[in-house]
Amino acid sequence: MGTVPLLTDEEASPEARAVLEAIRISRGTEPNNFWRALAHDPAQMRDLWETIGRVMAPGALDPLVKEMIYVAVSAANGCSYCVHSHTAAARAKGMTPAMHAELLAVVALACRTNALATALGVEIDDRFRA
Amino acid sequence: MGTVPLLTDEEASPEARAVLEAIRISRGTEPNNFWRALAHDPAQMRDLWETIGRVMAPGALDPLVKEMIYVAVSAANGCSYCVHSHTAAARAKGMTPAMHAELLAVVALACRTNALATALGVEIDDRFRA
Amino acid sequence: MGTVPLLTDEEASPEARAVLEAIRISRGTEPNNFWRALAHDPAQMRDLWETIGRVMAPGALDPLVKEMIYVAVSAANGCSYCVHSHTAAARAKGMTPAMHAELLAVVALACRTNALATALGVEIDDRFRA
Amino acid sequence: MGTVPLLTDEEASPEARAVLEAIRISRGTEPNNFWRALAHDPAQMRDLWETIGRVMAPGALDPLVKEMIYVAVSAANGCSYCVHSHTAAARAKGMTPAMHAELLAVVALACRTNALATALGVEIDDRFRA
Amino acid sequence: MGTVPLLTDEEASPEARAVLEAIRISRGTEPNNFWRALAHDPAQMRDLWETIGRVMAPGALDPLVKEMIYVAVSAANGCSYCVHSHTAAARAKGMTPAMHAELLAVVALACRTNALATALGVEIDDRFRA
Amino acid sequence: MGTVPLLTDEEASPEARAVLEAIRISRGTEPNNFWRALAHDPAQMRDLWETIGRVMAPGALDPLVKEMIYVAVSAANGCSYCVHSHTAAARAKGMTPAMHAELLAVVALACRTNALATALGVEIDDRFRA
Repeated sequence: MGTVPLLTDEEASPEARAVLEAIRISRGTEPNNFWRALAHDPAQMRDLWETIGRVMAPGALDPLVKEMIYVAVSAANGCSYCVHSHTAAARAKGMTPAMHAELLAVVALACRTNALATALGVEIDDRFRA
Repeated sequence: MGTVPLLTDEEASPEARAVLEAIRISRGTEPNNFWRALAHDPAQMRDLWETIGRVMAPGALDPLVKEMIYVAVSAANGCSYCVHSHTAAARAKGMTPAMHAELLAVVALACRTNALATALGVEIDDRFRA
Repeated sequence: MGTVPLLTDEEASPEARAVLEAIRISRGTEPNNFWRALAHDPAQMRDLWETIGRVMAPGALDPLVKEMIYVAVSAANGCSYCVHSHTAAARAKGMTPAMHAELLAVVALACRTNALATALGVEIDDRFRA
Repeated sequence: MGTVPLLTDEEASPEARAVLEAIRISRGTEPNNFWRALAHDPAQMRDLWETIGRVMAPGALDPLVKEMIYVAVSAANGCSYCVHSHTAAARAKGMTPAMHAELLAVVALACRTNALATALGVEIDDRFRA
Repeated sequence: MGTVPLLTDEEASPEARAVLEAIRISRGTEPNNFWRALAHDPAQMRDLWETIGRVMAPGALDPLVKEMIYVAVSAANGCSYCVHSHTAAARAKGMTPAMHAELLAVVALACRTNALATALGVEIDDRFRA
Repeated sequence: MGTVPLLTDEEASPEARAVLEAIRISRGTEPNNFWRALAHDPAQMRDLWETIGRVMAPGALDPLVKEMIYVAVSAANGCSYCVHSHTAAARAKGMTPAMHAELLAVVALACRTNALATALGVEIDDRFRA
């Protein structure tokens, strides 16, 4: 249970229902809880669905790579829901247990050195500036 | 200037100096500020250098993918030093401007939906649980 | 269940019980879990209750605006309890579904551009400095 | 200096230049550093400019309220650039020193209780669930 | 239920089982969920177990002090699991209710002033630089 | 330069000036930038000064321990100003280089395991609940 009720297709506005239907067709599964919560704001819901389609599509980066980056950011932000849903999505796109373990190892290493760099107050080296 | 002085090779302990030398040999450049700040704790410094070598090496994931995951976590954690140094490292490993732009697009998308999922208090769907 | 037991009125010290009673009178409802957990530290509990009364009172900003700022900070901090309790408080002060949707849209937009500004390492423009 | 060079109008692509020009016309000032850094990704740049126009426009919430929510999220996220640019924007929309002081008081209060709620591991009260 | 199944001793690899056994002997209790989730990556698991032994051992800082610092970082990071497990560990090492209350008071104070310093964009005083 | 100008004693209100004077007497040094930025809100400034005096005083925890906890929280929150000022304060209270190194080792370890626990979505063990 969250801060808003999850809307069924019947409760959603026609605009939100159209996005729920697009998700169903595109993914071949029922829309998950996130979308039913977001259905209270059809404009953001549709914009987000379109942005996800554009950003997560194959391009200079592979879709699975993008999904693992998503998991990494969600872990760093402490978003439990996002960690769960995007770990599942990464698995569906081919992430093996070995890849998952390496992903978490990089995330843990980055969080460790992030904390050290902040605590040491390290100045940015000239060579790292654009 | 940070919270500790950056140690020169002369000021560093023999153990720290050995790591500085290993970095110099491995990377072909002078060790950056992070390592000179960390030289105050030679045990952590050496352990970190060895962990980085192990975690960032080629494996189930490509080294460039790992470096971009590092940038993503650093951006989510708000660690400016880490963003600068690992963006430079990703470029050195072949990240093109198009790949950088897509990386940032995924990071921005994840931060956006992380905030929404938290603010909506969405329950984790059963299908996302292991 | 949390890291400390929730104290009943009977278990709380006289000082903590006085705050529980003040909350009951001021809000017309039973004190929520947060206060029963905090009752282990009566000094902080009373100080916090007084600070909330002062900070959240009408002033240059409207109380509902303050409550929505509270929700926004809690979402950015990833504090699930705080998001839930202050979303409920904002509703009790008049936040409509349309206002809630716009609030979340601003939070999501800010998280998105926060990540971009950090990842791009943008220098602060002179015009933004006081 | 950041992780990418700031693009001048001449260096930007036609699509990015069109957004720079739209900002110049809409705001009556030169585009700030954020936009010149983002110009390396014209698609995200244009999408962000349009989203900002839609999300920050008057609606159920006042534009100044939205701008202060933006500042609050940026402070919670530790994004220095965003705090500076949106504090300036809030001032331009009428935020007085008294309003700024109250805004920061709410942010500081929320961060304080966010940390307490997390450290106490408080369970969400049934009454706070939708 | 998390993003990976918790491994029993039978399901764990010999290397992971050796760490589970080391934990059992060292702590005199069954390994907790964290270790059974981490058992999917035996290399990280063993490295982490050794690092914890080294970092959390008595040294210039008392082990209880270190455990309370661990709780403080976990609260700031919003890691619910870590707050719970390290609060329990701190209690086992002698943290009294009064010490716990003071710990949380410092954490709450730090989060409050962290937000203010960021929102005010305060320049670092020369005297604070190394 | 921050989001507000730093107030001199002459520019500060009488109430703020009284706090500046109290800091000068109590610490034997000029008030640092944080207080001159906060002087725009004399009520919060005085409340914060009193809270710091109460929370950071000797009690169940040693003042130096409290100061190191403050540094740890500030590193986790990514607040550069706070890391600098409280590292200096911890040094003034007797933190040795060895203690500083151990403090950072605990902070780095906690950030590493925080990220792992979140990414693994580990359920809280019954034994850790109050």
